[in-house]
Amino acid sequence: MKIEKPTLLLWEDRARNNILKMVEKSRRSRVRFRPHFKSHQSTTIGEWLQEYGVKEITVSSLDMASYFAEHGWSDITVAFPVNIPEMEKINRLASRITLHLLVESTEAVNFLSANLSHPVNIWIKIDVGYHRTGIEWEQSDRILALAKRIQKSQHLSFRGILTHAGHAYHAREKTEILAVYQQTLTRMKSVQSHLLVHGIHPVEISIGDTPTCSLRDDFSGVDEIRPGNFVFYDAMQWQMGVCQEDQIAVALACPVVAKHPRREEVVIYGGAIHLSKEYLVDNRGIKIFGYVAPLQGGGWSEHFPDTYVKSLSQEHGIIKTTTAILKNIKIGEILVILPIHSCLTVNLMGKLLTLKGEQINTMRLK
Amino acid sequence: MKIEKPTLLLWEDRARNNILKMVEKSRRSRVRFRPHFKSHQSTTIGEWLQEYGVKEITVSSLDMASYFAEHGWSDITVAFPVNIPEMEKINRLASRITLHLLVESTEAVNFLSANLSHPVNIWIKIDVGYHRTGIEWEQSDRILALAKRIQKSQHLSFRGILTHAGHAYHAREKTEILAVYQQTLTRMKSVQSHLLVHGIHPVEISIGDTPTCSLRDDFSGVDEIRPGNFVFYDAMQWQMGVCQEDQIAVALACPVVAKHPRREEVVIYGGAIHLSKEYLVDNRGIKIFGYVAPLQGGGWSEHFPDTYVKSLSQEHGIIKTTTAILKNIKIGEILVILPIHSCLTVNLMGKLLTLKGEQINTMRLK
Repeated sequence: MKIEKPTLLLWEDRARNNILKMVEKSRRSRVRFRPHFKSHQSTTIGEWLQEYGVKEITVSSLDMASYFAEHGWSDITVAFPVNIPEMEKINRLASRITLHLLVESTEAVNFLSANLSHPVNIWIKIDVGYHRTGIEWEQSDRILALAKRIQKSQHLSFRGILTHAGHAYHAREKTEILAVYQQTLTRMKSVQSHLLVHGIHPVEISIGDTPTCSLRDDFSGVDEIRPGNFVFYDAMQWQMGVCQEDQIAVALACPVVAKHPRREEVVIYGGAIHLSKEYLVDNRGIKIFGYVAPLQGGGWSEHFPDTYVKSLSQEHGIIKTTTAILKNIKIGEILVILPIHSCLTVNLMGKLLTLKGEQINTMRLK
Repeated sequence: MKIEKPTLLLWEDRARNNILKMVEKSRRSRVRFRPHFKSHQSTTIGEWLQEYGVKEITVSSLDMASYFAEHGWSDITVAFPVNIPEMEKINRLASRITLHLLVESTEAVNFLSANLSHPVNIWIKIDVGYHRTGIEWEQSDRILALAKRIQKSQHLSFRGILTHAGHAYHAREKTEILAVYQQTLTRMKSVQSHLLVHGIHPVEISIGDTPTCSLRDDFSGVDEIRPGNFVFYDAMQWQMGVCQEDQIAVALACPVVAKHPRREEVVIYGGAIHLSKEYLVDNRGIKIFGYVAPLQGGGWSEHFPDTYVKSLSQEHGIIKTTTAILKNIKIGEILVILPIHSCLTVNLMGKLLTLKGEQINTMRLK
């Protein structure tokens, strides 16, 4: 495998193991597994999921829904507040697949109601504490009123309540993440009960984020889970204790272009347009834009100790390391970077190269 | 102009004015103007620059050099430490255009010397204080030794010394930026003198960054300037006092998908995969991922006061605003976001839409 420039490597065995674990876990809990495809945006990886029985998927835009619908997926949730300027796209999709949309406002429901020409499934987005989108879970009467409004609309079938506990990403320990799960479930159950006692039926519960879905084993009381990042994981998930380092399935291979021994720094060809500017802050308060590992045995080995990407500009990455490690790194050599947020890196790169040398495209590569 | 989803608008008149200003300024100073094409990556905008007499350009990768060479550009500097694994690409380029490469190590020079089959121009990258790449300007003997090594190599023509004063971006005021320029010039002149007195001749000086090139009028003593971002500018340049708000030539048009009056927040379809996660920190210590303005009169007007993008996830942007402004924003309406770093936004979007409705492609759109 000859690498000349920043190349996103995919460790297929690791990704398949990550998938298998989540599939088995959801089977044991008898919960519907509707993985989020925004992380990989790839029909090939979609096929791997299909091999394990996945038939229903989640995406983050109507364009992504259209892409996967064209590739044979027929049951798709767009986990994003319905974007009404794309009404034509919605009708086109609704005419050919089972389409699930998210709403959180009367305006959006009224607009859909007036403009839909085909049936869609509707989920009310609930805010269980992340405060990005959704109706706050405590506002049960607002949620009830919206559910009733949906039920009265032609072409709109109310399916249930859906949330994304993105605040799980603020946690620093497994116990905190599991506490977010427990709280999410309690809050969603409370909304569900309120709707059920007021005659709305059925009310499914859909949850989904990689941290809680990875650490939790039992999903009793939940109808559907929608994690996405788990296929690849990344340095952020690893630092949170959500996965092990050897579960991270993607890494950006980058040539070394300069060495600065006095500063204990190495410059790589690999920057913000490859990795994204996502960073994490370690326990010393240092911003980390990626961890660094050597290529080894057809894959890569454990990360170098005391070594990290300290800054990124458009095409440059600066690695901070130790004198001992720097001494053994050569100009022109390839290092791999474990990305902080694999979804953004995959989106930027647009394609992946398996360790066997097969190229896997995503919808970004047109 | 019907906008359905995140769309990068280009205000052509503003971009052309920005270009014209820089062209006139470089003419007055009799300095070679070799604009950096990494900011726009577009053959169309390249043609605009050509209309003003630009013949020599800068790029940030060998792929970008190949792309513009295919589109007729015949004098290209790759302003990135030479990436030796791409030696074949270098020879291919060197066989057909006037190619300028940057070096900072003996390893790279030796490798080029042993593998080049066509002549290239070589610049030594000097670190004048940014500490990203280059030989530190104080190490004049190391620089001299490398220049001599280059002169002895077949196919390598030593052209001069080149720097990027990226630390100008750490400045908070115009006076600080102008001080960085002055210091850069002094340091480059000192290196130049050292080389000249030791018999290296000629030794050109190439500098280039948008902040200093925008604020400085007189480039005496410099042979070449290489700014790139100035074509579009962005919120970062504006906040630094490098440009006026009405010089910002790109903005991301985004549909509003949700409103949260209690939090004074608006959710847009437009996230990290459109804008990038670049942010700036304002004088209250708040992270700003973009400023927000309404569409107006075929373009956009001034930004809303007390309003900014407070966070971005993959496709979502959260705007923090005031109750009064929020009241007038409707779901489905289009707002424009002034990006923090236009180069990264243009790279992510891959295409631009002029206010007249013409699509302009970049090399990212394949």
